[in-house]
Amino acid sequence: MINVGNKPDTLRTARASGRLQAPAEVLERIRSGQVEKGDCLQVARVAGIQAAKRTDDLIPLCHPLPIHAAELAFEFTDDAVVIHAEAAVIGPTGVEMEALAAVSAAALTIYDMVKMYCEPEDLHIDGVRLLQKTGGKSQFSTRLR
Amino acid sequence: MINVGNKPDTLRTARASGRLQAPAEVLERIRSGQVEKGDCLQVARVAGIQAAKRTDDLIPLCHPLPIHAAELAFEFTDDAVVIHAEAAVIGPTGVEMEALAAVSAAALTIYDMVKMYCEPEDLHIDGVRLLQKTGGKSQFSTRLR
Amino acid sequence: MINVGNKPDTLRTARASGRLQAPAEVLERIRSGQVEKGDCLQVARVAGIQAAKRTDDLIPLCHPLPIHAAELAFEFTDDAVVIHAEAAVIGPTGVEMEALAAVSAAALTIYDMVKMYCEPEDLHIDGVRLLQKTGGKSQFSTRLR
Amino acid sequence: MINVGNKPDTLRTARASGRLQAPAEVLERIRSGQVEKGDCLQVARVAGIQAAKRTDDLIPLCHPLPIHAAELAFEFTDDAVVIHAEAAVIGPTGVEMEALAAVSAAALTIYDMVKMYCEPEDLHIDGVRLLQKTGGKSQFSTRLR
Amino acid sequence: MINVGNKPDTLRTARASGRLQAPAEVLERIRSGQVEKGDCLQVARVAGIQAAKRTDDLIPLCHPLPIHAAELAFEFTDDAVVIHAEAAVIGPTGVEMEALAAVSAAALTIYDMVKMYCEPEDLHIDGVRLLQKTGGKSQFSTRLR
Amino acid sequence: MINVGNKPDTLRTARASGRLQAPAEVLERIRSGQVEKGDCLQVARVAGIQAAKRTDDLIPLCHPLPIHAAELAFEFTDDAVVIHAEAAVIGPTGVEMEALAAVSAAALTIYDMVKMYCEPEDLHIDGVRLLQKTGGKSQFSTRLR
Repeated sequence: MINVGNKPDTLRTARASGRLQAPAEVLERIRSGQVEKGDCLQVARVAGIQAAKRTDDLIPLCHPLPIHAAELAFEFTDDAVVIHAEAAVIGPTGVEMEALAAVSAAALTIYDMVKMYCEPEDLHIDGVRLLQKTGGKSQFSTRLR
Repeated sequence: MINVGNKPDTLRTARASGRLQAPAEVLERIRSGQVEKGDCLQVARVAGIQAAKRTDDLIPLCHPLPIHAAELAFEFTDDAVVIHAEAAVIGPTGVEMEALAAVSAAALTIYDMVKMYCEPEDLHIDGVRLLQKTGGKSQFSTRLR
Repeated sequence: MINVGNKPDTLRTARASGRLQAPAEVLERIRSGQVEKGDCLQVARVAGIQAAKRTDDLIPLCHPLPIHAAELAFEFTDDAVVIHAEAAVIGPTGVEMEALAAVSAAALTIYDMVKMYCEPEDLHIDGVRLLQKTGGKSQFSTRLR
Repeated sequence: MINVGNKPDTLRTARASGRLQAPAEVLERIRSGQVEKGDCLQVARVAGIQAAKRTDDLIPLCHPLPIHAAELAFEFTDDAVVIHAEAAVIGPTGVEMEALAAVSAAALTIYDMVKMYCEPEDLHIDGVRLLQKTGGKSQFSTRLR
Repeated sequence: MINVGNKPDTLRTARASGRLQAPAEVLERIRSGQVEKGDCLQVARVAGIQAAKRTDDLIPLCHPLPIHAAELAFEFTDDAVVIHAEAAVIGPTGVEMEALAAVSAAALTIYDMVKMYCEPEDLHIDGVRLLQKTGGKSQFSTRLR
Repeated sequence: MINVGNKPDTLRTARASGRLQAPAEVLERIRSGQVEKGDCLQVARVAGIQAAKRTDDLIPLCHPLPIHAAELAFEFTDDAVVIHAEAAVIGPTGVEMEALAAVSAAALTIYDMVKMYCEPEDLHIDGVRLLQKTGGKSQFSTRLR
């Protein structure tokens, strides 16, 4: 784990997204609350926040970071539920991995809750990526999305 | 969390895969061990196994399962490192989520280790999905990959 | 940690409850979704399930148990939100502590989400107790509630 | 999880208490060390400290906080063991939930250790509440206890 | 993580020990309860039990095992506190690592509690090893304590 | 857990070492990659870093510390693999226990991976100790090793 002790504490934020591809009828179930295991987006939100907080447990070379914020948002397209996550910290290293971990955990959580309603080949997680980061020596913002 | 107490303990296995899309020069770094943070595939293997073991921590409605096996394998294509994970248990519920969690954690781990060598838009995780499951009431095997 | 290796694996269930005392206007906020941090009962449900699964982490002399079920339910009285939790396992030891841990975590979670809306002396957690257990050498069921 | 990044780091402390109601003979066992599972107050102290440190794991919308202090104290009344917990941090958000989590974990731990000596209806956890908090924009101190 | 799914569930036990070398005056402090941080052996006992339960978190290629028993004992020699740990499970793989993890965690815990009373070169952990294992295909018992 | 809130945040580092005694043929297996479970030093490195990050989970009275660095190195002698660990933080308390926890976890991990190749009496962990610490009110450096 590289030494970040010589990096200054600055405000760092990151925004990531990803999507769970699923059949239209499964998406409709999620949206209308017809999922036996519970409210998918509510459970996925909690899963994403918890994953952001324990990112360094999941990803071995990530530094432990007492993050200041983590939040998720969801939107639907015709063939997917899109997951957005943001994280922020005032610290010596960025929160890209925290945002990406939140997206991944939320996507897996929805997958788990709806897998009983379709075939495995109908579900896949795609496009998990960083949209924006601020703070540290490099800024970054993608135009897409 | 649904009650699986009335399901019989049977041998259940699952195989999942996913890929981290990355520029060719980054893939070459991974392959040739030119990554400052360490050996990506070795670290990702451990991350994947640990994620499989603590899947129920990451995914709220997953049951805790004392899994009997979890292993990862990696292969390279022109524009991605492909991650394969297998998990097995003798238990009342399947290990699909364990295999998918292993793939996701391994992909995020490699992402974290190489993100210093390219732009954020050059890295994304795609095609995280189940390839095969055995045991329980349904068998499943995809022909793809 | 006492040795449960000589106890037979039987179906064991437990049901517990507790209540978070809160002012009527806070209870109304919970019920009507006027809580800035999110949907209290949804978040508390996840917190309770996660706590049930990791009870042996929270309570040092509890055995690790791959529980088969954990679920929560909520009801409102004039001055409290009442939390019910059930847990089940087929194993050598009971799930009383799992049900009680679920109730406690859920109560603390709601407390955390609404504490900004009232004075600390207006919030307290009371009546955390076991309502019923089945399996093992002793059965138990309280008439109350 | 709300953003606390704009809040200043100040010294914040919190003090909470709660009680485990139990029959007099059970309380006498705790006091005199006649509990087969071990020394209840010693184990409960460790459980409380560990719970304070991992509060954000237990309570989903709590921020991770590298707390500076957590300690527990116990006293006996005629029908209960009363648990006091204090926590402190220099950080952007308070440690109320850390103190409350410590009390809850300690109460559950004692419950677990003595439940073999009485009926379930004889044990309940009551009065889990905040006694005092300092730091941040609001100070608070209850006169009771 | 190798596949243990084809191994039969049998009763497996393991006993391990290790010692924390420390100056006589430090050992006397431990014995007589003159350690500011608390009762060393009580805290170390809990640390050891918790480590046994989460061995697979600490040691990546260990299987998760819902262990049936874990207990510690301590004895003093002229220049060390000797830590003994036992673990048991009915499962497909042994509990050697659980017993060794318990010893290590207990030794580190005492180290942490007494390090303020002596120089670092006066403290070291030695002789962490397996004393006995039963169950599975191989039995083993050392004559040496 | 003692209160470190009045201690200043300074750069603190610690270096620890320990060794796993093993037969020459086992050491040769580790060195040459002839261990069925995988690459011992790679897995042990990850185990050590993860243990350093979660030291306060393993050792009850350790404070949670968002460490800035943790790294391991390995060397071979005739009868042992020697494990070195370093940790660093800018914080109110030292990282001695983090370095020692990293050494212990790495030693246990190698033990677990090679235990199938020799008798239990051939493996033991010795000499786990602090080599150097900097920062805080006391500096320390051992001449040995």
